[in-house]
Amino acid sequence: MTNTKATVLGLGAMGAALATALVRAGHATTVWNRTPGKADALVDLGATAAATARDAVAAADVVIACLLDADSVHEVLDPVADVLTGRTLVNVTTTTPDQAKEIAGWAAAHGAVYLDGGIMAVPDMIGLPGASVLYSGSATAFERLRPLMDLWGESAYLGEDAGLASLYDLALLAGMYVMFAGFLHGAAMVADAGVTATEFARRSAPWLAAMTGGFAGFAAVVDGGDYTVPGQQSLVFSDLGDLLGASAAQGISTEVVGVVQDLIRRQVDAGHGEEGFARIYESIRQPA
Amino acid sequence: MTNTKATVLGLGAMGAALATALVRAGHATTVWNRTPGKADALVDLGATAAATARDAVAAADVVIACLLDADSVHEVLDPVADVLTGRTLVNVTTTTPDQAKEIAGWAAAHGAVYLDGGIMAVPDMIGLPGASVLYSGSATAFERLRPLMDLWGESAYLGEDAGLASLYDLALLAGMYVMFAGFLHGAAMVADAGVTATEFARRSAPWLAAMTGGFAGFAAVVDGGDYTVPGQQSLVFSDLGDLLGASAAQGISTEVVGVVQDLIRRQVDAGHGEEGFARIYESIRQPA
Repeated sequence: MTNTKATVLGLGAMGAALATALVRAGHATTVWNRTPGKADALVDLGATAAATARDAVAAADVVIACLLDADSVHEVLDPVADVLTGRTLVNVTTTTPDQAKEIAGWAAAHGAVYLDGGIMAVPDMIGLPGASVLYSGSATAFERLRPLMDLWGESAYLGEDAGLASLYDLALLAGMYVMFAGFLHGAAMVADAGVTATEFARRSAPWLAAMTGGFAGFAAVVDGGDYTVPGQQSLVFSDLGDLLGASAAQGISTEVVGVVQDLIRRQVDAGHGEEGFARIYESIRQPA
Repeated sequence: MTNTKATVLGLGAMGAALATALVRAGHATTVWNRTPGKADALVDLGATAAATARDAVAAADVVIACLLDADSVHEVLDPVADVLTGRTLVNVTTTTPDQAKEIAGWAAAHGAVYLDGGIMAVPDMIGLPGASVLYSGSATAFERLRPLMDLWGESAYLGEDAGLASLYDLALLAGMYVMFAGFLHGAAMVADAGVTATEFARRSAPWLAAMTGGFAGFAAVVDGGDYTVPGQQSLVFSDLGDLLGASAAQGISTEVVGVVQDLIRRQVDAGHGEEGFARIYESIRQPA
């Protein structure tokens, strides 16, 4: 794997971080960005700047695309599809699962090997502990390129379905955005009592980190399909009326907590009140 | 603090755990429960069972109430208010902030010192690392009883306002329930792709635990009041359209993610799209 030739298309904060990790590890790295100037710092580190996307793709067997969105991938690669033939496209551009599958089909039609990646990190985390990248698509390409990709973070292969990495990525991001909203809701609840958001974060971060320990228990119940397993906190016990009332009393929005209460209520109304909290999964699986 | 006399009213799972910790540490502990039979295991450990709530309150200077709800506190204590005079009531019953303040006022009117507690743990965690209890009310009582209360978990004093512990407790619980809903939403997204909830939990738990590291940054922006501070992920970049689309494509409810998108959209629509994600705090503080 020493001195693999690789090309990085797209030098936003993430693309630049990925390219930097490759250059620093001694790989012959070609970089390209639609608007010029972004390559300068990488060239100083030892990368080669390509004048055109065609030159960039032609420079290496491994082409890493880290662009704005799925449309950008086509805008950049459609005109140079002929050069992509026989090469491996590692697409870490954020896309929907359907877009990833469409691009995978397009790549296959042009004789390129395709691997889709979902980066579970911010650019500053690339190459550091805690960063991980989820891949789906060609298993062969994953195994071959793994030493290269491990420079970015922990590499995980999910399956041949090219859309799976994107789907998994979005599912993890869903949890993150929802958790952030829950944290900010809590901070808003205590604000008028004179508690700063910083003080609240100091307690809330370790509390929620500890509470992720509950996921495995919920998951076991969901996978088992029996929400009546003893030892669970029941849905009626989980009623969020006090939480909604206290939020309303603070004059803040109740919508963030209200959506969870709706999930609970639908199951209670359907006669499942004595079953475990994990049953709200059924409210999510079957839209109201 | 050796051999402090304490009484525990209410021997549900949590009350029994609190009493057990006191007995095991060698404190003379009197216990009482509305329905009989719950005290037997504690008596075997060395606790004394009181026949009536009156006898229980009379037996110790420190009276710990761990009852079903605020109504239960009044039902149990109103008839014995005369015995409570001169004693300290530590009320760890789950209540709203307003209920805690009301009970504090009632206790003061009967000459009792009042400390309100919010337990951030499940019964099994009492006395183990990770358990914490938030207190508000009498600072003197907190300092005096801290060695006793530290037997349950890390004790934290928030302020004289008796409602503060309940408010803080509910704010932390808000984050927890919302996070659980976000996790289950993610699990529902990947289910049809053949990913079990258990497999998803295995990645989601460390991912979300790591992402709690972002709270401090959001909090600094909220406390600073300037959402234009450079280096933040912008609201337009945080648009959850792909997440909603992928959820809808899986045939599951979009409501959990949709509520966060609504918070984002309101700020974008008000012209703050280039400001940081933390700005959704303003959507929460000012209901739609």
